[in-house]
Amino acid sequence: MMPDIDTIRPGFDLTFQDDFDTLSKWRRDVRRFKTEPLPTNLVDDLLELAALAPSVGNSQPWRFVKITSAHARKSMRDHFQVCNQDALEDYHGEKTKQYAQLKLSGMDQAPTQIAVFCDQTTQLGHGLGKKTKPETLGYSVVMAVHTLWLAARARGVGVGWVSILDPRQVETILSAPQGWSFVAYLCIGWPEEEHQDPELVRHGWQKRVDIQKFIIER
Amino acid sequence: MMPDIDTIRPGFDLTFQDDFDTLSKWRRDVRRFKTEPLPTNLVDDLLELAALAPSVGNSQPWRFVKITSAHARKSMRDHFQVCNQDALEDYHGEKTKQYAQLKLSGMDQAPTQIAVFCDQTTQLGHGLGKKTKPETLGYSVVMAVHTLWLAARARGVGVGWVSILDPRQVETILSAPQGWSFVAYLCIGWPEEEHQDPELVRHGWQKRVDIQKFIIER
Repeated sequence: MMPDIDTIRPGFDLTFQDDFDTLSKWRRDVRRFKTEPLPTNLVDDLLELAALAPSVGNSQPWRFVKITSAHARKSMRDHFQVCNQDALEDYHGEKTKQYAQLKLSGMDQAPTQIAVFCDQTTQLGHGLGKKTKPETLGYSVVMAVHTLWLAARARGVGVGWVSILDPRQVETILSAPQGWSFVAYLCIGWPEEEHQDPELVRHGWQKRVDIQKFIIER
Repeated sequence: MMPDIDTIRPGFDLTFQDDFDTLSKWRRDVRRFKTEPLPTNLVDDLLELAALAPSVGNSQPWRFVKITSAHARKSMRDHFQVCNQDALEDYHGEKTKQYAQLKLSGMDQAPTQIAVFCDQTTQLGHGLGKKTKPETLGYSVVMAVHTLWLAARARGVGVGWVSILDPRQVETILSAPQGWSFVAYLCIGWPEEEHQDPELVRHGWQKRVDIQKFIIER
């Protein structure tokens, strides 16, 4: 008898485990991209993989808007600049200077840009698992983003998550369908440079803290 | 001159890319565990890897409570049962029968259980990136959970995310430090069985939907 493909459990070897750990270390938020377009099928593959993420009640609430028109692209970039200027004004002294020098978005160059939403009104999953914790719907979308991010990096592609955007305004700018709430704006492309250390560590904004400080027992 | 270890960019080969895709397919929400304890260093490694997740402004808001006492374990299990019974009462007819038959938590068996929180009051990251979208703090914690999840599966370890819990009550039961808000409760251990298809697909609760239906352009 032929074994059922769905029950042949893959064993991942030590090489894969090490490589996965390396991937986790080298996955970076990329803000400097080459403008060279990505192959269409590569982007499609990444979206297919994203949809394999866990979701509460298998609700699959992830929704994607590919930014393909010059108009949408420019509107989003302009909106980021307004929000970023506004954020800058919250800082004082040295932090203002530092903030102004950080590169916080690759929206000028990234060839592929995708806005990611959560369908708050989806009937998929029949509400399972989200009664006490409705945020799990948005969390499911975040895990799809993270799956895409890691899969991209494994292919040498960089991803940057821009969060300095006003959710309600993004929904308006992109005429998001009813019920879709904004989660993330992704810049995707071949990176211009790669580092193991996060951009915000390298530029002195915020160091890494030992995880042991964040663990308690009960 | 010795090359700087932080700038030797790893290239991931096609085998790794395929294996990562397989990992994404086989990562499952596990609810059936062997009671055999996990090696302590394995759990520590998973937490270290979790801390490599992206976080808004490098704020590293993830906080972990290892459930080690019999009292905390029982209190959490009892609380789940109350919430699960309450959720059951929302369904009618066939869905009630189906819901009652689903196994939605491995809290009875899983040798390692970790409650994951978000420190809403952290000063790390100096607020960067979260002004317009404060949820990104919780999203960062979710990506840490997802990193842990994938790293665990690469090692043959199963993870189940229990969300049928009341956040404020969990914070009380576990005497969570001030400012920590509940994100996820993780059951971790060697799985009793493994499948490629999600539990909720296998038991007829909710099918997978083609991702193409969830993509639009602007």
